[in-house]
Amino acid sequence: MVGKILSDRDYILVSHSPRRRQLLEGLGLQFRLAESSAEEVCPAHLKREEIPLYLSNLKAEGCVVDDMTEKSLLIAADTIVWAGGKALGKPHDAAEAREMLQTLSGKTHEVITGVTLKSLTAKRQFHNVSKVTFADLDDDEVDYYIRQYRPFDKAGAYGIQEWIGLMGVKGIEGCFYNVMGLPVQHLYAELKKWAD
Amino acid sequence: MVGKILSDRDYILVSHSPRRRQLLEGLGLQFRLAESSAEEVCPAHLKREEIPLYLSNLKAEGCVVDDMTEKSLLIAADTIVWAGGKALGKPHDAAEAREMLQTLSGKTHEVITGVTLKSLTAKRQFHNVSKVTFADLDDDEVDYYIRQYRPFDKAGAYGIQEWIGLMGVKGIEGCFYNVMGLPVQHLYAELKKWAD
Repeated sequence: MVGKILSDRDYILVSHSPRRRQLLEGLGLQFRLAESSAEEVCPAHLKREEIPLYLSNLKAEGCVVDDMTEKSLLIAADTIVWAGGKALGKPHDAAEAREMLQTLSGKTHEVITGVTLKSLTAKRQFHNVSKVTFADLDDDEVDYYIRQYRPFDKAGAYGIQEWIGLMGVKGIEGCFYNVMGLPVQHLYAELKKWAD
Repeated sequence: MVGKILSDRDYILVSHSPRRRQLLEGLGLQFRLAESSAEEVCPAHLKREEIPLYLSNLKAEGCVVDDMTEKSLLIAADTIVWAGGKALGKPHDAAEAREMLQTLSGKTHEVITGVTLKSLTAKRQFHNVSKVTFADLDDDEVDYYIRQYRPFDKAGAYGIQEWIGLMGVKGIEGCFYNVMGLPVQHLYAELKKWAD
């Protein structure tokens, strides 16, 4: 790994998302995983980046790791899709997934990740915004995707790395990996700056 | 696959790039592979998209498939990195790779793919441009990447899906998959429009 300071830390990713784990692995960091017991409920008045910042903080605060040392750093993240003035969550069923994808079709929306970094003595938060523009999706395409990929674990009902991202996303503005759930370059820059 | 018209064709990808193959597979199309015998040499006066359009045409013209029918469609693509008013090719050695990455560091460049579609009776070309912005890369990071990833098969000396793309690319404007070598959404839209 590049940089002695970065590789000397005990990183703990608070996540059960295989995508976030994969992205952090791609950065070449050694890390371990932890779960958070936080109930992910967010006050209704929060908007845009306030939501994933709030939720990533809940995850970090709800994670108890017994053997944390002064070298340990928790990394917690939450990603939302912000479209038409509201956050799209995970769809409960095919009908809701279809409704979300029809909302996103032919338009630009924002994907916002909030990240909380937390050590024994310090905490820091940041967020990252990417704009995603979908081409017009027809009903056959939407139904095919929902049937084949079952995007019920994904905010906004899509994964940009899946079929619908390949055939349907005209372009993005910002960090691609942020759309997948972790703004890796931004995180790397923050980890380089981090000093307790 | 979605759409009877799309799935009824005999697609032939003229490429030996595993990345292009992987991206076309992600689109869910059935296709076969062919090689081109064209020597990829381009007149020096060509600029920007003229270069990959010219080269993708050479590849398509240099590909002889004996059993082409009226349902067959050749897909040939070429991708360049355009930075500081010139095209960056594949680096010959570590010193040239280092020089290219130092050129790209902290700046925005363009990645341009030209695509040629060719059947027995018709031909169509299009191109796609993505802007890529690198964070400042330090010498240790550049040297680590070149040593570990040996990007000698990549125009501009980097792969956005590799470590340097994760830690070093602040953001893009346009199609991410275009930066990997194939503007998949644009191709899908052109294939839907294609009619002999």
